[in-house]
Amino acid sequence: MPPFRPQPLIRPLVEALHPYVPGEQPKVKGLIKLNTNENPYPPSPRVLAAIKTAVDGRLRLYPNPTAQSLREKLAELHRCRPENIIVGNGSDELLALAVRCFVEPARPGQRRSRSLVQYFAPSYSLYPVLADAHGAEPNPVPLRPDFGLPATAALNRAVGWESQASLTFLTTPNAPSGRGYSNAELEALGRVTKGILILDEAYVEFSAQNALALALKYPHVLVARTFSKAYSLCFQRIGYFIGPPRLILALNKIRDSYNVNGLGQVAALGTLDDLEYYRANFRRIIATRQKLSRQLAELGFEVLPSQTNFILARPPKFPAKAWLEKLRQRKILVRWFNQDCVRDYLRITVGTAREADALVAAARTIAR
Amino acid sequence: MPPFRPQPLIRPLVEALHPYVPGEQPKVKGLIKLNTNENPYPPSPRVLAAIKTAVDGRLRLYPNPTAQSLREKLAELHRCRPENIIVGNGSDELLALAVRCFVEPARPGQRRSRSLVQYFAPSYSLYPVLADAHGAEPNPVPLRPDFGLPATAALNRAVGWESQASLTFLTTPNAPSGRGYSNAELEALGRVTKGILILDEAYVEFSAQNALALALKYPHVLVARTFSKAYSLCFQRIGYFIGPPRLILALNKIRDSYNVNGLGQVAALGTLDDLEYYRANFRRIIATRQKLSRQLAELGFEVLPSQTNFILARPPKFPAKAWLEKLRQRKILVRWFNQDCVRDYLRITVGTAREADALVAAARTIAR
Repeated sequence: MPPFRPQPLIRPLVEALHPYVPGEQPKVKGLIKLNTNENPYPPSPRVLAAIKTAVDGRLRLYPNPTAQSLREKLAELHRCRPENIIVGNGSDELLALAVRCFVEPARPGQRRSRSLVQYFAPSYSLYPVLADAHGAEPNPVPLRPDFGLPATAALNRAVGWESQASLTFLTTPNAPSGRGYSNAELEALGRVTKGILILDEAYVEFSAQNALALALKYPHVLVARTFSKAYSLCFQRIGYFIGPPRLILALNKIRDSYNVNGLGQVAALGTLDDLEYYRANFRRIIATRQKLSRQLAELGFEVLPSQTNFILARPPKFPAKAWLEKLRQRKILVRWFNQDCVRDYLRITVGTAREADALVAAARTIAR
Repeated sequence: MPPFRPQPLIRPLVEALHPYVPGEQPKVKGLIKLNTNENPYPPSPRVLAAIKTAVDGRLRLYPNPTAQSLREKLAELHRCRPENIIVGNGSDELLALAVRCFVEPARPGQRRSRSLVQYFAPSYSLYPVLADAHGAEPNPVPLRPDFGLPATAALNRAVGWESQASLTFLTTPNAPSGRGYSNAELEALGRVTKGILILDEAYVEFSAQNALALALKYPHVLVARTFSKAYSLCFQRIGYFIGPPRLILALNKIRDSYNVNGLGQVAALGTLDDLEYYRANFRRIIATRQKLSRQLAELGFEVLPSQTNFILARPPKFPAKAWLEKLRQRKILVRWFNQDCVRDYLRITVGTAREADALVAAARTIAR
């Protein structure tokens, strides 16, 4: 036994962390908020009605601990079994669970790959935060300058790529670039990835294709989905993973027993009953995205092709940070990342047609 | 580098876990459910109205990431600052966070106390589950046969007690016994506990006193509270910790950024606006508890004094397990734990006066 010294109350690992700073949610009247990729359209009236109907004395009871009805309905939609699905308190909860389920905290003498949380950069800034909080090692692998995936043949030469990493995250379509990846590319990536591969499809409803089939084919692939963005349910925190029952069972072992609030379950179930409403909105957002991309290009922006509900665009004349401020003066909030390879860009959420028009009008004045 | 061998996809630690089995929630018509300590009374009509009013287009937006308004209102109620409070997705989420924040996973060469999750037994069965999931060591310390706390002088001789344990949980008032502890006892315990002490006050609203002052006095004490039981909000998952800002900040660093659903925040805020409604129900439940305890005692039950919304009682004539089944045949569901020191008892949630009457009538028939 080592000699006595007082123990720290808080783990040194935690003391060293920086708290995650979520995107800005300012309450400025008349502000056009194009910075956090929320859906500009409200949930369907049928969903709102379903929630209101559920608001009664049953709130005193525990919600279903496994989101059973929701998993059954999702399984029907995705042509798989409820055992292929775990529902979380937003997909963020599940991403954190995955790190704790599949990755060993770093420790001396252990093979390095066991504690690697690998991800392609730039992408969701949460991945390294999750790695740090677990005492694992964040392992960013650079995307190509056009945000494409390195070809698998090139991967082994790519900076930092480790095929044995316990867990690899890929946001597909990518954020913040909006770029989509083909299933052929994703499958090739899956074949050279020996640990768990999580395809984070937070924005997939705005894309031409999805990778669900891979999660139902391979023993090491999970797909992450969320009701937050496409289904306008940020407020109620519902996300899910689809994949092999063995991995889903392992995740279930370490989640909180009542992790998904009841009205969130009701809302998600109602959403699946009214998919046509949402699909019409996807078409609307995609149309707005195409028009907005064209109009910004005409003003001199370099707009990357997007498969999501946002675009990444390099503005003309002024640095991106100056654009951020000039737009904000005009009560339009977009996102700028102070990071290599995206520092010259703005990430702009595709809002309603009207919000996009307002953005274009403001940009026209600024660029003049 | 060790020689190559295929890595497991799932951490061996997780493979070895048994999934937590939540209490039964059967959907049997006419069943009287006295097994999971829910409040028999619905949320206040004002709370239900407040939730319904909030169900609109704003569901598409993220909820407040720090539950700011709720923390401000709780701080006012408890006469502390918002920095003393963290809100969780039920107090279960916070209990799990605390283990990850304050306890090191066990590893060779590390002092054993660093990885101890200590708790008094019997109590909430989640504590050892959380320890196992973190790779820490569960450390049960037996309560006295009457479920009292060992005197602090006796603690050092108590089986397994480790004053240096990183984290110690005490459910107060205790579950499943219902026994309350005085603040003097709790403060004495705090003085001999060198690591973090969490006083889990899930049932405190049915008790004559609470330990809030200790969490606002000592640098290592946290109090856990929940809206689930007393405030009839199980469905929406709202719990909170109160304690020193330094510990609260550390917990904030490792929680999910949007961990508390929006309608849950609305519901909890509404609850704090209508406390008189709930306090009237507490008085009603306590009156029912006293009457039920007396009536069961008259039938030969040995009923322990309770400071909660349930009672622990040793039934006459048949083993407790047989009583469980006989009551179930009469459509009354209570809880029986197949564990030393409580195997001879039933845990009975105090329902409405009418439910308690039905239980007494059934018990009278069985005991006859």
